Amino acid sequence: MIGVDWGSSALRAWLIGADGIVARRESAAGVATIADGRFREALEALCGDWLGRAPSLPVIACGMIGSRDGWRDAGRLRTPAGLQTLAQRLSSFDDLLGRAFRVVPGLVARGQIDSPDLMRGGETQVFGALQGREGLFVLPGTHCRWVEVRDRQVVAFRTYMTGEIYSLLCRRSTLASLCGDPDDSSQHQAEALRAFDEGVDHAGTRPGSLTHLLFTARTEALLGGLAAHQLPAYLSGLLIGAEIRDASDWSPHDLVPTVVARSELASRYARAMHRLGLHGSVADGDSAAAGLAAIARAATLVA
Amino acid sequence: MIGVDWGSSALRAWLIGADGIVARRESAAGVATIADGRFREALEALCGDWLGRAPSLPVIACGMIGSRDGWRDAGRLRTPAGLQTLAQRLSSFDDLLGRAFRVVPGLVARGQIDSPDLMRGGETQVFGALQGREGLFVLPGTHCRWVEVRDRQVVAFRTYMTGEIYSLLCRRSTLASLCGDPDDSSQHQAEALRAFDEGVDHAGTRPGSLTHLLFTARTEALLGGLAAHQLPAYLSGLLIGAEIRDASDWSPHDLVPTVVARSELASRYARAMHRLGLHGSVADGDSAAAGLAAIARAATLVA
Repeated sequence: MIGVDWGSSALRAWLIGADGIVARRESAAGVATIADGRFREALEALCGDWLGRAPSLPVIACGMIGSRDGWRDAGRLRTPAGLQTLAQRLSSFDDLLGRAFRVVPGLVARGQIDSPDLMRGGETQVFGALQGREGLFVLPGTHCRWVEVRDRQVVAFRTYMTGEIYSLLCRRSTLASLCGDPDDSSQHQAEALRAFDEGVDHAGTRPGSLTHLLFTARTEALLGGLAAHQLPAYLSGLLIGAEIRDASDWSPHDLVPTVVARSELASRYARAMHRLGLHGSVADGDSAAAGLAAIARAATLVA
Repeated sequence: MIGVDWGSSALRAWLIGADGIVARRESAAGVATIADGRFREALEALCGDWLGRAPSLPVIACGMIGSRDGWRDAGRLRTPAGLQTLAQRLSSFDDLLGRAFRVVPGLVARGQIDSPDLMRGGETQVFGALQGREGLFVLPGTHCRWVEVRDRQVVAFRTYMTGEIYSLLCRRSTLASLCGDPDDSSQHQAEALRAFDEGVDHAGTRPGSLTHLLFTARTEALLGGLAAHQLPAYLSGLLIGAEIRDASDWSPHDLVPTVVARSELASRYARAMHRLGLHGSVADGDSAAAGLAAIARAATLVA
């Protein structure tokens, strides 16, 4: 099968055989970057040779590609929802070199206030990372999700705009001109890490409004407490610290969190959780690919 | 005298006589919009005739014009600080058509976490609005300050990036395309006000991370709960509600807050405070002008 994780800012594809991933490819052709609805062209540009070589291979995608702004709306299911329900409710668009392009629906959860919560793609990652029957999963990114799974069903989740606010602050705010990046020197890296820890401690252990805490980045920069290369790390620490404090109040305490992410972001979350007394682990591998394969099996599209 | 309130995004000037304000002018030549340090030219463009007509008239300014990014750094004082101290520490730049351009220093306060807090301009507004010996003042804007005054001294203050985050979300975030403005119809205005109240209630009465609450704007918009013209008001309610909740924990309960602002923003704050059980009032008039006049008298520059 071909698995596709198609988010706002990236397109990732895997060629998956009976024994697992055979090949992987990635491009920056995220849903938000594609003009005039040229989604088919973007997918063919990334893996047209896979599609041409095996015209009967099922293709399954998850993520923002199934949103109103994507290829077509793949709908959404209410929690609780499990693998079988997702598999039964795949949307099928019949226009990919003569075969169906199948898309996993999104999930809607009832929020603590009256507002509902919403995700697309996270549900697939969770089922890829799920080893047992239950778990608490943390999916960092532009919008970070904390997802509670019981008896192999997503029963609740909660979204945080952490990554997006971080990016707005570093690039677009009055703090942007004060922010610099650390160079590769071990001294810079260590100083940035120290600033990250400080941010986590400030936001994670003291009550207080984030809009006030974020302003302390300005005063720290102007009054000499933090250097330019420490500021982005400090902001990241404040935002992740505030998120973890809130999520650990919200989430059930019998579940140990697993951070599902590639790269450096996962280790930041793990480090911050550890500082705030929440002991989690980090999931390895391509969870979205594993989730797409599990959904394909549940839909009996592959053996 | 000529009083000048020169912030990041606006330049305001008053011609002030013994009996109060004689004339007022305003331009968009804020500190952040002026290139190549052409501050003198901007001030002369706004009120060169006042300057030329009375060459001995003292000129006193407050705000970001005295910051590192402004005309010249006017320094800063530590709290507690009163009118006399500000008047003694005016910076004097000797280059405005042969006379001194005097600038009020900023204030630094010790924050609750180790980070200090900082303001420029707010101190002057507070002394303009101060009727008695003490008070709690709320100064909305890009960066909103809550300022505690005891025995005519600013003893503490706390800054919130409320206005800036609001603007980033409405203009630059993934929520921007979902946001619209209400038209002048009474139905639209009433619906926006209802969304504002909802935001205040959500953030002001329930604990929870702002980065999660802000995401509910997205789900409300996508799942039909809020129309485009309600979203900015809802975001404003969330941000102001979270600020008031935090500030009312921080500030002493024996002082009744006074909102110091012109325009619609002051009534939003008053409305939100009322909903959250904090009964404040709104100060009338040009507080910055009154504060500049009080500082000029304390410095014996005018009778």
